[in-house]
Amino acid sequence: MAKTTPNHTQAVSGWAALDSSGKITPYIFNRRHEITGIVVEVGSNVTYFKTGDKVGVGCMSASCLQCEFCKNSEENYCDKVQFTYNGVLWDGSITYGGYSKMLVADYRFVVAVPENLPMDRAAPLLCAGVTVFCPMKDNNLIGSPRQNIGVIGLGGLGHLAIKFSKAFGHHVTVISTSLSKENEAKTKLGADDFIVSTNAEQMKSRHRTLDFILDTVSANHSLGPYLELLKVKGTFVIVGAPDKPMDLPSFPLIFGKRTVKGSMIGSIKETQEMLDICGKYNIMCDIEIVTPDRINEAYDRIEKNDIKYRFVIDIAGQSSKI
Amino acid sequence: MAKTTPNHTQAVSGWAALDSSGKITPYIFNRRHEITGIVVEVGSNVTYFKTGDKVGVGCMSASCLQCEFCKNSEENYCDKVQFTYNGVLWDGSITYGGYSKMLVADYRFVVAVPENLPMDRAAPLLCAGVTVFCPMKDNNLIGSPRQNIGVIGLGGLGHLAIKFSKAFGHHVTVISTSLSKENEAKTKLGADDFIVSTNAEQMKSRHRTLDFILDTVSANHSLGPYLELLKVKGTFVIVGAPDKPMDLPSFPLIFGKRTVKGSMIGSIKETQEMLDICGKYNIMCDIEIVTPDRINEAYDRIEKNDIKYRFVIDIAGQSSKI
Repeated sequence: MAKTTPNHTQAVSGWAALDSSGKITPYIFNRRHEITGIVVEVGSNVTYFKTGDKVGVGCMSASCLQCEFCKNSEENYCDKVQFTYNGVLWDGSITYGGYSKMLVADYRFVVAVPENLPMDRAAPLLCAGVTVFCPMKDNNLIGSPRQNIGVIGLGGLGHLAIKFSKAFGHHVTVISTSLSKENEAKTKLGADDFIVSTNAEQMKSRHRTLDFILDTVSANHSLGPYLELLKVKGTFVIVGAPDKPMDLPSFPLIFGKRTVKGSMIGSIKETQEMLDICGKYNIMCDIEIVTPDRINEAYDRIEKNDIKYRFVIDIAGQSSKI
Repeated sequence: MAKTTPNHTQAVSGWAALDSSGKITPYIFNRRHEITGIVVEVGSNVTYFKTGDKVGVGCMSASCLQCEFCKNSEENYCDKVQFTYNGVLWDGSITYGGYSKMLVADYRFVVAVPENLPMDRAAPLLCAGVTVFCPMKDNNLIGSPRQNIGVIGLGGLGHLAIKFSKAFGHHVTVISTSLSKENEAKTKLGADDFIVSTNAEQMKSRHRTLDFILDTVSANHSLGPYLELLKVKGTFVIVGAPDKPMDLPSFPLIFGKRTVKGSMIGSIKETQEMLDICGKYNIMCDIEIVTPDRINEAYDRIEKNDIKYRFVIDIAGQSSKI
């Protein structure tokens, strides 16, 4: 992280992990020009945004802009896509992420945040929100007749998947390893049904009942028992990313003519579409605010799954002190 | 296998495994009425077929006829479907398979064999043919612009997949563990490209080149290296049925927005459509004829993969001797 970029001349204060311990400490580095939650300045060729606009930058900061995916507003599948964290911009400069007072971004990778969404509760939508929104859009779940949707895992992605599903008028079944999450899922988030995945009887009683399942779990797991919950020709989309291969038994796939798909975040166009829909339906992320001096504590709690459902770091509130 | 069915009154000679050794020996059992390669008699309500017609019976002999799948000509996904081997018909009688002089079948589970197809080379189309045909049809590969198609495994299913792909005008890449199959795949079957799956360099050189892959392998394998061959948003269909779960790494699925599907044989309607297309394009299975007294030897050779590409048992030629 402690690399410098010669053509960046403005000193910016931020927070970074400076060694392999992973501890986040104050860090001063150089940037070229500035964007944050509120636009403070725009380049001379930028017409989409103006000073004072509420804006966001998601996971991507650059892509080749020339391949079929970039030309087709699918730059998230460009094989030269550069992420907002440790990516490399066109001029060779490093993307430093968002733990700083100011963030520099190309206007093509900036989206507008609807006026009615608070900045803190909108921020995680730029990654978690678009990650669950895109497969729902791709599989015709917006404006469609009521479908039976399953959501595996009730975390940052899962709780947003419930909110989108309910906004779109669907029946939602949450599938979780933790019985303790049932009340939260149903009473607070509006889920219609809840299954404990380790309860074989409960799982069996829902065989062939779901049209679509969104799997948000990043822990290793077998897909077999979940595929059986799908109707024939049902669709299962993986958006979590377990580091080890998942078990995929052929029989529930073949005998049920089922489909398993992958999906990764969304394009800038889709991110804007998602935010506009969130504005329309008042969909926001449930968050917990942390100040920069407590980032390490927040990381420790993430390791223990002790979070509902995303931490948001209030850099602006803290920035005057460093 | 040695069950009897009281309401079947006509003695029929056939071949069966009578104990758990798996050895096939002559067997006489009772059947109600008769159908074989050539129709010899039809029921009074049957108008689709007449005496002398060339017909076939595939993997299915009965289904509930009432569920959404049966009503929608998808009876292969009816959860009460009965197979032609060891299934149970509506009257409780057993389906004895096709190792006999005569076969009884309901007209709804009988298909017409085009006149230009020889009976022996058409027979395996009823299972292997429709198994590879349906995913090609479902994924719009009939009458579509030229696509890059991958076929994993060069056996009974795989060689037919090449024939269909070439008939439909596509570019075909065979992916096999056996370099020794390259010549056969290219010169005899018309494949355009051949990759040895254990050759990492060859595999990498074809990354993101294929639109569609048909995986016909029934041995256990990981999907990861094959998924990387697909373009972004490419489709991978599994029609082999490994008995153990396959490894499905999430990254090639997610980063490539790829799709993995299962497919099982086809409906009767699709089987007829497939046969008609085989008649039109002169697509037949490459076979080796065996007489019933050599069935056990043929089974041993199947265990050793020593077959190009299907054995067909000539029951009619041999039946007068037993």
